[in-house]
Amino acid sequence: MNERNVFLKIAYDGGAYHGWQIQPNCVTVQGELERGFLKIAGERVSMDSSGRTDSGVHALGQTVTFLTETCIPTAKIPQALNSVLRRDISVLSAHEVKTSFHARFSAVGKTYQYKVYYGKKRNPFLEGYTWHYPYPLDFEKIKRGTKLLLGTHDFKAFQATGSPTKDTIRTIYELELSCDTKQRILGIKVTGSGFLYNMVRIITGTLMHLGSGKLEEKNISEALQTQNRTLLGQTAPPQGLYLEEVFYSEKTRDKKLKKD
Amino acid sequence: MNERNVFLKIAYDGGAYHGWQIQPNCVTVQGELERGFLKIAGERVSMDSSGRTDSGVHALGQTVTFLTETCIPTAKIPQALNSVLRRDISVLSAHEVKTSFHARFSAVGKTYQYKVYYGKKRNPFLEGYTWHYPYPLDFEKIKRGTKLLLGTHDFKAFQATGSPTKDTIRTIYELELSCDTKQRILGIKVTGSGFLYNMVRIITGTLMHLGSGKLEEKNISEALQTQNRTLLGQTAPPQGLYLEEVFYSEKTRDKKLKKD
Repeated sequence: MNERNVFLKIAYDGGAYHGWQIQPNCVTVQGELERGFLKIAGERVSMDSSGRTDSGVHALGQTVTFLTETCIPTAKIPQALNSVLRRDISVLSAHEVKTSFHARFSAVGKTYQYKVYYGKKRNPFLEGYTWHYPYPLDFEKIKRGTKLLLGTHDFKAFQATGSPTKDTIRTIYELELSCDTKQRILGIKVTGSGFLYNMVRIITGTLMHLGSGKLEEKNISEALQTQNRTLLGQTAPPQGLYLEEVFYSEKTRDKKLKKD
Repeated sequence: MNERNVFLKIAYDGGAYHGWQIQPNCVTVQGELERGFLKIAGERVSMDSSGRTDSGVHALGQTVTFLTETCIPTAKIPQALNSVLRRDISVLSAHEVKTSFHARFSAVGKTYQYKVYYGKKRNPFLEGYTWHYPYPLDFEKIKRGTKLLLGTHDFKAFQATGSPTKDTIRTIYELELSCDTKQRILGIKVTGSGFLYNMVRIITGTLMHLGSGKLEEKNISEALQTQNRTLLGQTAPPQGLYLEEVFYSEKTRDKKLKKD
């Protein structure tokens, strides 16, 4: 029994999947990966990710750990898995890690990006990859809104109602806007210590409603103080959300933040 | 009978369609558009495009003309059609034009772009939207290849074998490369008087084989002189091809060429 702990980095187009987590009678990313591994290695493993992505949510750098006894060399796992997976999932790299290392519990931060298409006319190529928000926007207002969210706060108002999570204090290290004016795509990139359920999507819905004049800045400051979800904007739809990176060392995370 | 000729500009993600042209038991772009028009206007029309795109080929600016007696104002047609079409087709604009104007026969030029993903690792988000060509490339060689193709030539070697087209003289006004080094996407943009069947895809396959060293520049010059298809590269797959623009006036076309 030569069990080892393998760490994978993967990317996927979440459009065809019922999210990360295995569910009966649903095609999920975890399900496809575990089925793929069974095919190449003949071994049933249980893969843990840095967090469950919802149906339709995408990942550029999702992370996974799992224990295995396979004789396939770790470095060969990406190629072997990719050869049996559908092409909307890609295993980018594999490394052996200490048994104590866990994709979710060892993480010290994450970066998500949310993409909003603000053009008037619908764009067939952005369907499933952005939120179409065709209203006139005041980008300065959105920018001011991001400033209010930075830092450590009780983000209880920014989680899906009914979530069981009790500790709702989180830190947002960085909240950056980028704008592709040609394609009319607004990117909202947020790096935090961790995120509550739907937190990035509620932040996005709130910032967009700020930009279109449906909400005021004071809604954000009040929600951070009173934890009142109703002060905030809608939960932006899943298809604009991308899990970009998961950090496992404060050093790497802080370096990345300074570099960007 | 108040018949008028309507000109549409449309964009589509060709991934889900068996090309432009109506075929029995196949979902096609023309079929969806005509069915959509029947739904909104109760009228069966026959739509002509600037050219048939193959299964999987995309369009950012396909053009269409059709005769109609509908009382729906021309300016309202895009919104009305979009409300019944799947979101992977978008009608961008509609104008009334002279009866003598025809999407295909009135065209004086077209611009296509072909997108090649040259990264090593597969990228789930580029599946269906690029050709994955994961070989080391000499961009200078590709650039020199484009120079040989510019101008007026007999492009017989650059058409699918068995094509019935007899007049195979075409003019390429511009052949531009663009490179997104971060995403590793090479764009090959070609504007010509018209294109033979599979011409852009054979040009692309040839340029890429030039870049990876599988072909030499002399293959191109010889093929242009001898019309020998076997000297050239493979036909690049359809999913990397985008019909970008169709020109109806030499002035607009030439202005566009100078501007770019």
